[in-house]
Amino acid sequence: MLVPNKNHLFHQIRRKPSQIVAPILFLVLVVYLLFGIGQSSSKKPKYSYKDKTQGWLLSSKIPPGPDEMAKNHIMHYNMNLLETTVMPAFNKEQVLVLTPMSKFYPEYWDNLLALSYPRELMELGFIVPRGKAGDEVVKKLETAVKAVQRSSTESARFARVTILRQDSESVESQLEKDRHALKAQKERRSKMALARNSLLFSTLGPFTSWVLWLDADVVETPKTLIQDLATHNKAVIAANCYQRYYNEETKKNDIRPYDYNNWVESEEGLRLASTLGPDEIIVEGYAELPTFRALMAHFYDPHGDLSTEMQLDGVGGTAVLVKAEVHRDGAMFPSFPFYHLIETEGFAKMAKRLGYQVFGLPNYLVYHYNE
Amino acid sequence: MLVPNKNHLFHQIRRKPSQIVAPILFLVLVVYLLFGIGQSSSKKPKYSYKDKTQGWLLSSKIPPGPDEMAKNHIMHYNMNLLETTVMPAFNKEQVLVLTPMSKFYPEYWDNLLALSYPRELMELGFIVPRGKAGDEVVKKLETAVKAVQRSSTESARFARVTILRQDSESVESQLEKDRHALKAQKERRSKMALARNSLLFSTLGPFTSWVLWLDADVVETPKTLIQDLATHNKAVIAANCYQRYYNEETKKNDIRPYDYNNWVESEEGLRLASTLGPDEIIVEGYAELPTFRALMAHFYDPHGDLSTEMQLDGVGGTAVLVKAEVHRDGAMFPSFPFYHLIETEGFAKMAKRLGYQVFGLPNYLVYHYNE
Repeated sequence: MLVPNKNHLFHQIRRKPSQIVAPILFLVLVVYLLFGIGQSSSKKPKYSYKDKTQGWLLSSKIPPGPDEMAKNHIMHYNMNLLETTVMPAFNKEQVLVLTPMSKFYPEYWDNLLALSYPRELMELGFIVPRGKAGDEVVKKLETAVKAVQRSSTESARFARVTILRQDSESVESQLEKDRHALKAQKERRSKMALARNSLLFSTLGPFTSWVLWLDADVVETPKTLIQDLATHNKAVIAANCYQRYYNEETKKNDIRPYDYNNWVESEEGLRLASTLGPDEIIVEGYAELPTFRALMAHFYDPHGDLSTEMQLDGVGGTAVLVKAEVHRDGAMFPSFPFYHLIETEGFAKMAKRLGYQVFGLPNYLVYHYNE
Repeated sequence: MLVPNKNHLFHQIRRKPSQIVAPILFLVLVVYLLFGIGQSSSKKPKYSYKDKTQGWLLSSKIPPGPDEMAKNHIMHYNMNLLETTVMPAFNKEQVLVLTPMSKFYPEYWDNLLALSYPRELMELGFIVPRGKAGDEVVKKLETAVKAVQRSSTESARFARVTILRQDSESVESQLEKDRHALKAQKERRSKMALARNSLLFSTLGPFTSWVLWLDADVVETPKTLIQDLATHNKAVIAANCYQRYYNEETKKNDIRPYDYNNWVESEEGLRLASTLGPDEIIVEGYAELPTFRALMAHFYDPHGDLSTEMQLDGVGGTAVLVKAEVHRDGAMFPSFPFYHLIETEGFAKMAKRLGYQVFGLPNYLVYHYNE
């Protein structure tokens, strides 16, 4: 097996086995493209240069009508007025759904398929760790993707599905308990940040309006998740991630908070940060690091309005909708301490540094798998 | 004219003039796609699902041969082993050339066309400011692009050309003197950072191996620029940007340093940074901010070895080659003070925080237009 290192060279089995150089980036890419995606989208008309298309390019005039392109022409000419509105499906805005996936849950997939957002406006992107566990994930994911993308009904197919293989093995393959141990968090979340960035920056296109980050272990959301989050018209907006479980005390099925990364900064959190060395980080949800931050997980009111908003300073990645321009402006997931924050929490800070506001919906629940 | 604001909504002239909402992102996109780009690339074979392709996906085995895909199939299946090597052209590595362009210099274009890197492996990306000056740039650029991309010789065409329109007008339209005034720098470079990020993250694809940042006013480089920079096999490597001029003293044509953003950090620079407020920045090359940093511009030795390397802490964007994975890991151009640095200088710091090293070639010259 290839051992990734920092030489940035590549094990080149295919072309020149004799010239093998130190491997680094073993990014195996699988890109599924829906054939004729351009043709099928009314938002991306193609034009022949025979048309007088130059005029509308330079102004905000109405572009010429649909596909006038002969098959044997050399050039395509795509144009779009990119937008994010409160009615994204109606306005045919493209949504890119991104999921780092170290385990394939059929419930995740079924929930994704149940979303009511038009699939011709949805692109999916996955990044899967290397190693045997990752291989299994790719097999299952591929089977699931094929079943959908081979559908003869065009509207049943997603606009595009991209699967990337990471250059490193999963750090998720540890037990649930270890995985959440504070000392393991920095490394785990730093790697997760790199995976998110690779996924994001390989799949974000010029036509993407929104990016939905949806964790692979989120197994239940409202069918209208995308529309519901978009209607708030925020740069970044997170759902509240809970978990279903059997409550031994009440002997009933119940729910409990799961994602503690959606929070409002506190005086104590800032004070704690000020005591840290430049490379130390705070990760939320650990008794060892008492921040006294207001956690969105605790603001859930079962009788409250679903559309109640709260402004946040940190977000988790379980189910968060981001305007593509926020990422385009440069908001990424820092793998290094950024204001003592990393990954999704660091991303929220970065979005704020770029002048955007970050929100959460305390009463709008999505559910995490119960391991 | 649309006035961009922070509402992130969009002036929607095309579909619903009655439902006009506050405009933000007026990103007019023009994507030129070479028809059949997939078919023509030996690196991205397409497969039918009838083939037993699953095996090689999961291992580093040799993928099946070239295009076996019937035209009427629904799915494409692209695969690549991504790499960056010291022989990128030989190894068919894709290079994305990115240029923020507020002025079209025919000399820039001619120099680009003269580069000896195979065009079928080159993608070009441009971002042009809004406004009348930007309109002129798009016209000229479009004419130039068409002339090349309509060529009947496949090898004369670039793999893809993308032109983006910025959501704001140029700040470059000021006089050269004003443009470089210290107080104008922060705003100018902050906007430039946003433009670079938008361009980068809209064009970086899963198959990109290298990104060459080439400023629109770089009008002369060696023909082998890409190969020469790549052969050093560095995460980030910058050429030394000079300017030709007529020396009134010697009455001879001469050269002088131009880009002062390639530098090595100094004790004084760090001390100066430590005195700054959190939102203050240092930009290199101003008497008002004496950093005593070692500037690569001053390390040029006309008799020295072209391949001499020096490690840098800040880079300029005039001509710098970046491994795509550095950007994929999240290295972007901060528009906000990042360790008191912004734009390309902040990018260098970010690449270093991500664990990469940054280099420059003091004796390897490229030339800036002389206004």
